[in-house]
Amino acid sequence: MIIDGIKYRTIWTDTENRETVCVINQNILPFKFEIVQLTTSTDIIHAIKEMIVRGAPLIGVTGAYGVYLALLDAERNKMKGDIDEYVTGKCHAIIGARPTAVNLKWAVDKTLKKVIASKSLRNKIDSALRTAESIADKDVSSCKKIGLHGLKIVKEIIRQKKKKVINILTHCNAGWLATIDYGTALSPVYHAKEAGIDVNVWVEETRPRNQGSRLTAWELEQNGVDYTIITDNAGGYVMQKGMVDMVIVGSDRTTLKGDVCNKVGTYKTALAAYANKIPFYAAVPLSSFDLSIKNALNEIPIEERDIDEIKYAEYFDGKNIKRGLITFDTDNIKNFGFDITPSKYVTGLITEKGIVAPNEKQIRNLFNKQSS
Amino acid sequence: MIIDGIKYRTIWTDTENRETVCVINQNILPFKFEIVQLTTSTDIIHAIKEMIVRGAPLIGVTGAYGVYLALLDAERNKMKGDIDEYVTGKCHAIIGARPTAVNLKWAVDKTLKKVIASKSLRNKIDSALRTAESIADKDVSSCKKIGLHGLKIVKEIIRQKKKKVINILTHCNAGWLATIDYGTALSPVYHAKEAGIDVNVWVEETRPRNQGSRLTAWELEQNGVDYTIITDNAGGYVMQKGMVDMVIVGSDRTTLKGDVCNKVGTYKTALAAYANKIPFYAAVPLSSFDLSIKNALNEIPIEERDIDEIKYAEYFDGKNIKRGLITFDTDNIKNFGFDITPSKYVTGLITEKGIVAPNEKQIRNLFNKQSS
Repeated sequence: MIIDGIKYRTIWTDTENRETVCVINQNILPFKFEIVQLTTSTDIIHAIKEMIVRGAPLIGVTGAYGVYLALLDAERNKMKGDIDEYVTGKCHAIIGARPTAVNLKWAVDKTLKKVIASKSLRNKIDSALRTAESIADKDVSSCKKIGLHGLKIVKEIIRQKKKKVINILTHCNAGWLATIDYGTALSPVYHAKEAGIDVNVWVEETRPRNQGSRLTAWELEQNGVDYTIITDNAGGYVMQKGMVDMVIVGSDRTTLKGDVCNKVGTYKTALAAYANKIPFYAAVPLSSFDLSIKNALNEIPIEERDIDEIKYAEYFDGKNIKRGLITFDTDNIKNFGFDITPSKYVTGLITEKGIVAPNEKQIRNLFNKQSS
Repeated sequence: MIIDGIKYRTIWTDTENRETVCVINQNILPFKFEIVQLTTSTDIIHAIKEMIVRGAPLIGVTGAYGVYLALLDAERNKMKGDIDEYVTGKCHAIIGARPTAVNLKWAVDKTLKKVIASKSLRNKIDSALRTAESIADKDVSSCKKIGLHGLKIVKEIIRQKKKKVINILTHCNAGWLATIDYGTALSPVYHAKEAGIDVNVWVEETRPRNQGSRLTAWELEQNGVDYTIITDNAGGYVMQKGMVDMVIVGSDRTTLKGDVCNKVGTYKTALAAYANKIPFYAAVPLSSFDLSIKNALNEIPIEERDIDEIKYAEYFDGKNIKRGLITFDTDNIKNFGFDITPSKYVTGLITEKGIVAPNEKQIRNLFNKQSS
């Protein structure tokens, strides 16, 4: 994506110093655009935990780079002892940084496997870097394919409804910023725009962290896509008034049954789409599937985040980001980060291998295709 | 209700000077407790528009007092000309202050009718004051009855589910602060507490104005009721996890078919309750019915409020209430104030005349009872 005329991915190694990993600080967007340099696996864990980087696919790639930085640490400190044991421990810590999205575990495990298969420390370092880069490249190509598959749905809706402008509602940020490039839920939007289709995106603000009104609005603006911010509460109203043609969201973890675990509030939005017969799609790279989950509601750990995210608002005073008390001053608050949208409410899953119905047969098929 | 040991209603005439109407400034709660004195109908319109007072029943009573203050104005200014014409114009302006809730029109029209039926200006003034006071008293008694009827449902759920603590979820503030005393949706909560039942209230924060996390949390705390604030987005999650036994909300306008127009987000909350087979009740005094509405979605005017309510957060810095930018700095924002919950998703309507199913037959019956 382009920011102020320069093409960026959301994560890259510094061209001058390949031992430094660069990311965009998403905590201070859209108020400031700042690049953060990460040089240790501790930096990586901090970046994931504090949501300097966020979005399931980006967290995954960041975790993979964390394995690389952990090995560089070992080299710098001339570490003795069992490197594989050391790096396995570090992988554990990285995976623990955020519990809900499955991409993080998937990417870190994949990198670890390659590292363990390599012999010398130098080889392990190279292998970790290559794996992280390849996961990143694969993510870009997956997101692009998701966009192209999604575009077919957009075109079909336009054809059926004979519309000039298509209204797509989204929750949270599953855009370019949540991935390496293009985004998942927003990739069909960008591809539609590129195909000359007029799109308006209803952006649910996505309390408590406002990824919608801060990140999604910002990246759509950067890329010249029309959008309208609304409260999460108003998502049902615009649907019941016929102002939404389709909903696309991302997914932090998708089960074999097609249940979608995503940012809290996705479930209510899906229910509103279902009640109003509006197609509801989740854009999910294969890396976001967790085929081991039988019962999403009981088995997926739902992150409970700091209640200060609800109690205080982060605001920008023109110079700095500050926070102010916006609720009654109490600690009787719970901050659940995700919820589960049962497959019943999901029209389809847009993956890099095509669009499937959210059921075991079609999802298994998707993975069989992959391994063939 | 009791605040710091003193019993208050939400609106009253000053005991020393009956020509001054006193209200609690709800815009600065829970950060400051301040009483505002209103002495002209312009003050009244300002108080309603700026939400110094809010909540359908309280707006209604405030509007009635507005008629009284308009007549006092006429007396002070020794107005010549047709008093009835003058006061009818003022009533029009008061009703226009907020378009969605029907109680305002109902209460103002009722007061105007009494005023027109009275002969001298003095008589008209007395009549307006008496009518406003009687609407207020009637509201208190209606809310009390709503609480007692609601208590029966609470007891029945406790009996059926064999629960020690009942978890009631609510949206916005339909408590004491929205009425004259007791509240509508919260009246069953207060009555349950009084009956020795352990209640926990899930309080949806209710963006954009946070009436849940500011007002509902505050008044429950003042009255010793347990509560937990969550984002509106998390309302679906707590329901899908079985942590909610019933939902009670208020209503700004209820149709003959039993459709409920209430604070934006109520609809999504109702859908989540329906999907999880959780009883969803609206607590509605008869004054909130608008029997003239055939199609709620097309006919009820939905207030679009200032987008700054979404763009900026109001926070308390320990001394003053200030506001800070919390979204991407854009005007591509829409702020819809209400939505419609179709009767299909409503388990029952708790009125002062008992609990009815949301259908034309039972609702008509309610009004026949009243007139008999």
